[in-house]
Amino acid sequence: MFDIVKVAKDAKKASYSYGLLDTNTKNAALLAVAKSLRENEDKIFSVNAVDVENAKKAGYSEALVDRLTITKARFEEMVCGVEKVVKLSDPVGRIYDGRTVESGLQIVKKSVPFGVIGVIFESRPNVTVDIAALCIKSGNACILRGGKECLATNVLLHSIIIKALESARLDPNGVSLISDTDREIVSKMLKLSDYIDLIIPRGGVALQRMCQENSSIPVIIGGFGISHIFVDSSADLLKSADIVFNAKTQKPSACNSLDTLLVHKDVAEQFIPLVSQKLKEKKVTLVTHNGADRYLGEYPYRQEGDDESFFEEFLSLKMNITIVNDIYEVIEHMRAHNAQHSDAILTDSASNAKLFASAAPSACVYVNASTRFSDGGQFGLGAEVAISTQKMHARGPMALEELTTYQYVCQGDYLTRK
Amino acid sequence: MFDIVKVAKDAKKASYSYGLLDTNTKNAALLAVAKSLRENEDKIFSVNAVDVENAKKAGYSEALVDRLTITKARFEEMVCGVEKVVKLSDPVGRIYDGRTVESGLQIVKKSVPFGVIGVIFESRPNVTVDIAALCIKSGNACILRGGKECLATNVLLHSIIIKALESARLDPNGVSLISDTDREIVSKMLKLSDYIDLIIPRGGVALQRMCQENSSIPVIIGGFGISHIFVDSSADLLKSADIVFNAKTQKPSACNSLDTLLVHKDVAEQFIPLVSQKLKEKKVTLVTHNGADRYLGEYPYRQEGDDESFFEEFLSLKMNITIVNDIYEVIEHMRAHNAQHSDAILTDSASNAKLFASAAPSACVYVNASTRFSDGGQFGLGAEVAISTQKMHARGPMALEELTTYQYVCQGDYLTRK
Repeated sequence: MFDIVKVAKDAKKASYSYGLLDTNTKNAALLAVAKSLRENEDKIFSVNAVDVENAKKAGYSEALVDRLTITKARFEEMVCGVEKVVKLSDPVGRIYDGRTVESGLQIVKKSVPFGVIGVIFESRPNVTVDIAALCIKSGNACILRGGKECLATNVLLHSIIIKALESARLDPNGVSLISDTDREIVSKMLKLSDYIDLIIPRGGVALQRMCQENSSIPVIIGGFGISHIFVDSSADLLKSADIVFNAKTQKPSACNSLDTLLVHKDVAEQFIPLVSQKLKEKKVTLVTHNGADRYLGEYPYRQEGDDESFFEEFLSLKMNITIVNDIYEVIEHMRAHNAQHSDAILTDSASNAKLFASAAPSACVYVNASTRFSDGGQFGLGAEVAISTQKMHARGPMALEELTTYQYVCQGDYLTRK
Repeated sequence: MFDIVKVAKDAKKASYSYGLLDTNTKNAALLAVAKSLRENEDKIFSVNAVDVENAKKAGYSEALVDRLTITKARFEEMVCGVEKVVKLSDPVGRIYDGRTVESGLQIVKKSVPFGVIGVIFESRPNVTVDIAALCIKSGNACILRGGKECLATNVLLHSIIIKALESARLDPNGVSLISDTDREIVSKMLKLSDYIDLIIPRGGVALQRMCQENSSIPVIIGGFGISHIFVDSSADLLKSADIVFNAKTQKPSACNSLDTLLVHKDVAEQFIPLVSQKLKEKKVTLVTHNGADRYLGEYPYRQEGDDESFFEEFLSLKMNITIVNDIYEVIEHMRAHNAQHSDAILTDSASNAKLFASAAPSACVYVNASTRFSDGGQFGLGAEVAISTQKMHARGPMALEELTTYQYVCQGDYLTRK
């Protein structure tokens, strides 16, 4: 069986040297990875084609087969992603804070790498390259566990990466791949808190929950969350319809796409026909609550919902629509229905905007903007590792900086404590 | 049985109102708590005396009995602690970062309370008051679980606190005490991730590990760690002896007191007799390794050690002493022996100081200073919640700011994503 303990120990050792690498060395290694990927382009396509073929034969869903396919465009995006990470500023060695205290001790709080990061992800093989690049840049070693459906592709990508690392004189154990699909290995890995410093599961709720419940290593939970938009009575209704349309249909499979639309009772009669006319173009199924169906006229794609529907993250062209009395009811609703990711208020009332922004439990709160903006790129953070929906360490779009922790470095002149 | 689920749900509800409290309201509540404690001073002493009496009868160690005793001085310290928290600046609503991105979205990253914090601690009843005060100031609700030996004292302190909260019109469910000593309740609490946002265990390794392994809620592990001091060949030896003496004897029971002294081979002959002469005053037991005993002459308190001794956190007047060839050996030793708390190099070499500061795996690294400085007060952070030895979210002395998380608030002018 795959020796995860040895891999973790070796990764820990590699992390010591990675933590001391200067920016130029890390960038040179990343450029070597990008170059090597380009040189192996044909090979990557042909190995990936086998994974895709096998997945089709195994009867996997079209969506899954699509996710694991490396197209020309996706290959380009993946390699450019590595080159973009080169251009991002080094997150290590940043000084966050510092002071000289009464005793004379000079205290500096600076960013340092975590050490070893374990990332568990599903299907999309570009994640192997993305995460490796982000970990190299942030001075971390990583242990990657991808989906079993694209193991061959991942094994190839990993071998290309470690050869490039070796050519750049970096310890190849700094990027490890779990090349065995036995689930037991993941369970074992989640207990190796002596060697692994952080676990990032990138995948569905079941994976997240499994990690949360079984890991003795800190876990960054992310991705899942019900997204809400509240259309207040003072909102510009035409523009609000555009935002709702954008939030639901621009990329329905994204975790920040709209799940529940709450409409203020005073504008329901006017707004619901307006917005449903737009949503009809994309055949969005509306799950109706609290009398919202009364304003839908002949809308063809509809069904009645219950409280359970409010807990559903649709990830498709489907959403809840309900009518509320006021903003307090909206806030109550969000607290009760898993608002932790991205939620918006559309309003021209400054006081309601302020109240929403301070009471919404979400990682990202929007005033008069689409929930679709929750994204590392859109936030100007460069590459994104995940979108965290927990509160410790990282919240919302998680980028390079969140792959570091900090350390206090204190200097004295042979100073003792009084 | 104590209904922990109900308590957690009520705490969650209280956390919503606590999160919106302004600084003045929180400070007024804290002053009400301090006042009420003073008014109940006699009652506190008499109830505490019963706990102390029972602990003595039960045959608990002198150290434990001492820890749970509220003396006049400790009472004063506890109440002044609350008043000091009033003076600390509000950690909520701080703006960490912000930008207007290309799309026109204005993004602000601001500090917000966690929500509900569960704190599990042992014996010392002042922790009940300390933590309640810090949570109130940071806008968090808390659920406290103290040691069973001072349950009566904790119940009284808690009832005083919640009466004061009510008088200040705060939801009394914002500070809850688990008044049942059944261990099952803690196990249950560690699974309530829907209501509790963070767990802080303050106690021994066994408690920390139990939380780390059983909690599905994020945990801040702290306190434990082997502290090292390396005396380099270029160090000022007289001053170094002072630092070693300070780090070991100023408060041996503290988690930042010295465990392992590593002496450069070139100065061992000179330094070991020097430092041992000072340590003899306090009858410090020296656990010797790698030939260090050769330089101890007639030193009376000594024993031979093995690799196991290097993993011992002594918390008493006992320490390891060993001889090393160079700084690389020191770094290897620290990595292999659980250096994660506070570690120091004593040196006049700038390059060795720099290397140590970047390679030491510790939360707090010292150059020419005693490890005893690792402390919220000494760091100028005001009150201290714990000393974290993990890497996520909080590392080293953890103060008010670390009891908050952040939230992105994004404002647009009816903005959709392209």
